[in-house]
Amino acid sequence: MALSKKPVTGMKDILPDEMKIRDYVISVINDTYRSYGFTKIETPVVEHIENLTNKQGGDNEKLIFRILKRGEKLDLASAKEEADLTDSGLRYDLTVPLVRYYSAHANDLPVPFKALQMGNVFRADRPQRGRYRQFMQCDIDILGESTNLAEIELILATTTTIGKLGFKGFEIRINDRRLLKAMAAFAGFGEEDYDSVFITLDKMDKIGLDGVRAELSENGYESGVIDRYLSLFEGNTSCPGGDGADGAGEASDKSAVSGTSAVEKILALSSALGESLDPSVKENLTGIIEAVEAAKDADFRMVFDPTLVRGMSYYTGTIFEISLPEFGGSCGGGGRYDEMVGKFTGNSVPACGFSIGFERIILLLTESGFKLPGESDKCAFLIEKGMPKERLSAVLSEARQLRETGTQVLTVYMNKNKKFQKEQLAKEGYVDIKEYYVNPLN
Amino acid sequence: MALSKKPVTGMKDILPDEMKIRDYVISVINDTYRSYGFTKIETPVVEHIENLTNKQGGDNEKLIFRILKRGEKLDLASAKEEADLTDSGLRYDLTVPLVRYYSAHANDLPVPFKALQMGNVFRADRPQRGRYRQFMQCDIDILGESTNLAEIELILATTTTIGKLGFKGFEIRINDRRLLKAMAAFAGFGEEDYDSVFITLDKMDKIGLDGVRAELSENGYESGVIDRYLSLFEGNTSCPGGDGADGAGEASDKSAVSGTSAVEKILALSSALGESLDPSVKENLTGIIEAVEAAKDADFRMVFDPTLVRGMSYYTGTIFEISLPEFGGSCGGGGRYDEMVGKFTGNSVPACGFSIGFERIILLLTESGFKLPGESDKCAFLIEKGMPKERLSAVLSEARQLRETGTQVLTVYMNKNKKFQKEQLAKEGYVDIKEYYVNPLN
Repeated sequence: MALSKKPVTGMKDILPDEMKIRDYVISVINDTYRSYGFTKIETPVVEHIENLTNKQGGDNEKLIFRILKRGEKLDLASAKEEADLTDSGLRYDLTVPLVRYYSAHANDLPVPFKALQMGNVFRADRPQRGRYRQFMQCDIDILGESTNLAEIELILATTTTIGKLGFKGFEIRINDRRLLKAMAAFAGFGEEDYDSVFITLDKMDKIGLDGVRAELSENGYESGVIDRYLSLFEGNTSCPGGDGADGAGEASDKSAVSGTSAVEKILALSSALGESLDPSVKENLTGIIEAVEAAKDADFRMVFDPTLVRGMSYYTGTIFEISLPEFGGSCGGGGRYDEMVGKFTGNSVPACGFSIGFERIILLLTESGFKLPGESDKCAFLIEKGMPKERLSAVLSEARQLRETGTQVLTVYMNKNKKFQKEQLAKEGYVDIKEYYVNPLN
Repeated sequence: MALSKKPVTGMKDILPDEMKIRDYVISVINDTYRSYGFTKIETPVVEHIENLTNKQGGDNEKLIFRILKRGEKLDLASAKEEADLTDSGLRYDLTVPLVRYYSAHANDLPVPFKALQMGNVFRADRPQRGRYRQFMQCDIDILGESTNLAEIELILATTTTIGKLGFKGFEIRINDRRLLKAMAAFAGFGEEDYDSVFITLDKMDKIGLDGVRAELSENGYESGVIDRYLSLFEGNTSCPGGDGADGAGEASDKSAVSGTSAVEKILALSSALGESLDPSVKENLTGIIEAVEAAKDADFRMVFDPTLVRGMSYYTGTIFEISLPEFGGSCGGGGRYDEMVGKFTGNSVPACGFSIGFERIILLLTESGFKLPGESDKCAFLIEKGMPKERLSAVLSEARQLRETGTQVLTVYMNKNKKFQKEQLAKEGYVDIKEYYVNPLN
């Protein structure tokens, strides 16, 4: 069979210029999270198929690259379905492997455990621009911390990292799955309808309040319930039909929540919900927002967004997303998932995580013509062919000494078209070019 | 199905202590190779199955993790063999993907192209101690350089890296596939027998000259041919039956090659082979050895080893291996593979590479109790639970300021058993522990 030059469908080769930016971003992430006490760990990219298909991963479970059984375990003749052929697959996120890792090694890990992971994940999605089937994820998680100190630290560490990469004026949008449920209960939806209602609510930023109303109505819910539900969002959405998430003094009179700050909005919504909402949910959200605003150093603000849903079914409490103004949509997010460790060990362990959209950040930096700070000096030694051994050794020794001073030195033979070669080298950033001839008087 | 806590068979989770050493080694590799003008690139871990099974990978092709076709492409009912079920697999090395990458992107890359890759590769080998089914490889390659400047730079850059990691007194063993063939031809073996003869020769370090003689004899080769062949190795092997690779003055009188230095040995062997050997092979090897010895900075020596074979079938010229005294065997190696790009593009491109045994180096460093140089200060803030919001914000701000000075600061709530908690933190390296109480007079 002929060999293929392109990468497999939907995956990409990383060229040198992009790789430099990736390595720089990785180093900023490493250094910043380490300063917050996060510890780097790694898990295999291959995971047990039963761990990947336990209904925690939402739609991602449909996108798994499955690995064929090997040797005697593969019995093609008797195989009736896919499941008979595979025992493992490529991970679709870093959370499932982290929870498995924690379940296996908790005795050897500090309490709480603050983990940093950077690694490739795989989803057999339909290929499209800027979206690949292998992509890097960068996750931080805190396991064993039940208070919102976990959320506060995750948000502070992540926003500091994003700030160090040069991003400004961004937002952290925050909500709580328990608040989502309380709002649906208050309006009169049945618990069995929550998932469907939240799928519609999640479209608020695209179709607006009227679009959400229409879709809920199409789905057969009572108009009284819908009205009661949507009145909770009026003055509290940043979309057509709403009044802007920052509630800049234009809140409608009808709105149940018309505070101007994120904390005031939460308090107003909480009082509208009355006994439908456990008061600890309000305290959780306001506590996070106040602590982060007081201790932050990056240029961003906390925004309360009651329409924030987050797809993964494993979230149990706080959820959050990061929105960069340069990027029309989420550029990372996370939340609390207190029950996932229990699925492995039988004992629940509080857990909260934040995943940065690494590939989107790289895309933004690449497209904005990002310049790497402080690139080291680059020098090229052009050596004429036929250089006697002793002279060649002397040139290589000179290169070695220069490298020890931190200079990047490329040693390369002179081409026939030396002018073109020097132009190419200049393009690659080799401004300092030295020439070495067989006859030094040349 | 129950969830599995252990990693999949033969793969491993990386715990924090090992991860620190890995990250340190990665940074030394990155910095050193960059100073030699190598450019970092990356390819997907998933590769076309036809590229992985084109008979270049030797035994590794039997160890491929194959990925199941997806969607309509998977037709289980009509599938007769494994090949009908898979279209891709996990790469077993970094060389095949590199050559594919170069074939696809050569127009966008400098000439010569000096590539650095660090990435995971996968082999479904029988699990055994210290050998995993997912492991990191670190390769450097030079494409488009036909002279031995490529070999010289690869060896200098790699030995400098190994030296910076603290290893001393190691050896680079060198040979040439063309010399191997000339020796076999000189002895009278037919070309069709080379592969089998080299497989036996490769065992010299384990079974010695007599063992090799016995096995060749068992395999039915003529005793005259065998004698003529093995006389070329006498005085030139570092194994039972040989005289030590360093030829410390004890070379047998019968030996055809009894020089004392690597270069002298090559010259002696070359003169014994006469017209069977192209003189450029001798010049290639001696040129590399002399230039490296003159320009090196790490503590190692070049050793000529005519029994060095290297398994991969793609090598065409120089081959080399690195032997650390701490490790009984090869800890990396490589060579020239001038014909592999041509299999993708139809046009041959000179190519030469060196792969470091990353996992073996990590194992050696871990087992030797390696201490990371210059770890940053670590400080822990213990916060009593119930801290008012304003005070908590002040503590978090203090932590942020300390982090900006380069200190790693862990903020964590006080446990009931504070004494135990402080002991655990001290074990993790948090020597500086500050306590913050709700009542500051506590």
